[in-house]
Amino acid sequence: MSAEFDFIRWLRARTPISTGVLVGPGDDCAVLQPTSRQLLVTTDLLTEGTDFILEQASARAIGRKAMGVNLSDIAAMGGRATTALVGLVLTQSGTTEQIAQELYLGLEEVANEFGVAIVGGDTNSWAGGLVVSVTVLGEALRSGPLLRSGAKLGDALFVTGPCGGSILGRHLNPRPRLREIAHLTALVPITSCIDISDGLSADLQHILDASGCGAILDADAIPIHADAYELAKQTGKTALHHALTDGEDFELLFTTSSESALKLAGEPCAIRIGTCVESGLWLRDSTGVNPLHPKGWVHAFTEPE
Amino acid sequence: MSAEFDFIRWLRARTPISTGVLVGPGDDCAVLQPTSRQLLVTTDLLTEGTDFILEQASARAIGRKAMGVNLSDIAAMGGRATTALVGLVLTQSGTTEQIAQELYLGLEEVANEFGVAIVGGDTNSWAGGLVVSVTVLGEALRSGPLLRSGAKLGDALFVTGPCGGSILGRHLNPRPRLREIAHLTALVPITSCIDISDGLSADLQHILDASGCGAILDADAIPIHADAYELAKQTGKTALHHALTDGEDFELLFTTSSESALKLAGEPCAIRIGTCVESGLWLRDSTGVNPLHPKGWVHAFTEPE
Repeated sequence: MSAEFDFIRWLRARTPISTGVLVGPGDDCAVLQPTSRQLLVTTDLLTEGTDFILEQASARAIGRKAMGVNLSDIAAMGGRATTALVGLVLTQSGTTEQIAQELYLGLEEVANEFGVAIVGGDTNSWAGGLVVSVTVLGEALRSGPLLRSGAKLGDALFVTGPCGGSILGRHLNPRPRLREIAHLTALVPITSCIDISDGLSADLQHILDASGCGAILDADAIPIHADAYELAKQTGKTALHHALTDGEDFELLFTTSSESALKLAGEPCAIRIGTCVESGLWLRDSTGVNPLHPKGWVHAFTEPE
Repeated sequence: MSAEFDFIRWLRARTPISTGVLVGPGDDCAVLQPTSRQLLVTTDLLTEGTDFILEQASARAIGRKAMGVNLSDIAAMGGRATTALVGLVLTQSGTTEQIAQELYLGLEEVANEFGVAIVGGDTNSWAGGLVVSVTVLGEALRSGPLLRSGAKLGDALFVTGPCGGSILGRHLNPRPRLREIAHLTALVPITSCIDISDGLSADLQHILDASGCGAILDADAIPIHADAYELAKQTGKTALHHALTDGEDFELLFTTSSESALKLAGEPCAIRIGTCVESGLWLRDSTGVNPLHPKGWVHAFTEPE
């Protein structure tokens, strides 16, 4: 019996009994109990060389990242993540099974932390690089999902935490802001939301495009991660530049009405960084209000700027 | 703007308006209307060199296969397929965008044929080989899904069509038996079901392992595909051997009680091939009843026997 089959058996034996999971791995499909909530579903693939370098990142970290980025998409809709499916393409080598197990332990670690059951998957191997494909299902809020398209003129713009410099290591350990968004949606109606994967300014532009409005960011208000300062020493750019353009922060960027914004004062995971305006993307700093070009990580085909 | 972004825009513009799809591609998650039926979910990855050879199969055929094998898993549960997500890892080359579009047209062709909406995905590219990851969601029958574990002593064993020799080309164009199983489940209660991906005898063994029983197959009753005869000329093995052991037929193998079996007489997509017994896997032919070793395609790590 091959290592692949050993791994699949090992994997099946680990699947926890979970409410709502009627049939887990081992049949042709997983079977889930329906609920009355709208269903959220998202998929994200990570590939060796693009999203991680196996020699630099442990297989466990790659597993954590693959689950984390998908859970972050559920967080960006204001949802609750419930179940996941995992597709693996392993590299044929002497350490395949060990890497597969470590990957899976990383996936499971993040899934368990957020009460997500891994209910199925597909495992292959080839001579090529490692691919980890994760699909996550979740439930929307009773009031419906948070879309990118709901920002309104005058809405206040927030982020859940500091940005920039994730390439120094944080990009491998995304913290899906599921608990934070659950807390915030219980306090106020959120009008739009996205997770910062391409970069703060690029992802803000996605909200603005979908909502048909513009925004002014306050340079002084943008929370800058310590990693952005560290990275700026190496690149010669400013820490603010990194906070605005670096990808894979996985903080949430969201809007709420100016009245609701007042209720978020003092919330540590709601940092106000700007306001929605009629059109354009602008940065207000000591020199005045200037146009801001939305830059960010453009995946795969092109190099990051 | 990169070719990848062009492709993603092209892809989004094609997504049809579909009942039950509240938000399609373009936000952080797709949003689906819940139903009262149990939810089916399955994922299957195809990789270049293992599941297809790009120089031999058109990108469109690969797309058809990737969607078809996933829909076949929904058919194996007796379900109705509703939505799909597609993860692509494209090979960076001058023809990337054309291959991506052809792949997608193949995926869409099969999805459209069965009323499935492609609601989201993730597209990447790298220097490595092509990977197509598809996740399909569906709904179970009102009476619940068809599992592998329900076969009972005395049940009759059926296949939906002829088997063997799919490697001659049929493996690239799987016909998910969604309509056939919908027709059959309306006629009789089906006690267990699986799709033939590993090979008739190997997949039968999966049913027997899950159900805790055995089976006798009637050699004369097994429908042998013309391709199996053709392949046998090349391999020197018998056509029956190919029907029993070749993978990727994607016919359904199912059981029903001996009383229900009578009601399936004359149904062209229900060919009785044997009976469930207490234990073991047996083949009855002109020489008597002999043990049958469940053989089939073992994916990826090892060569097919």
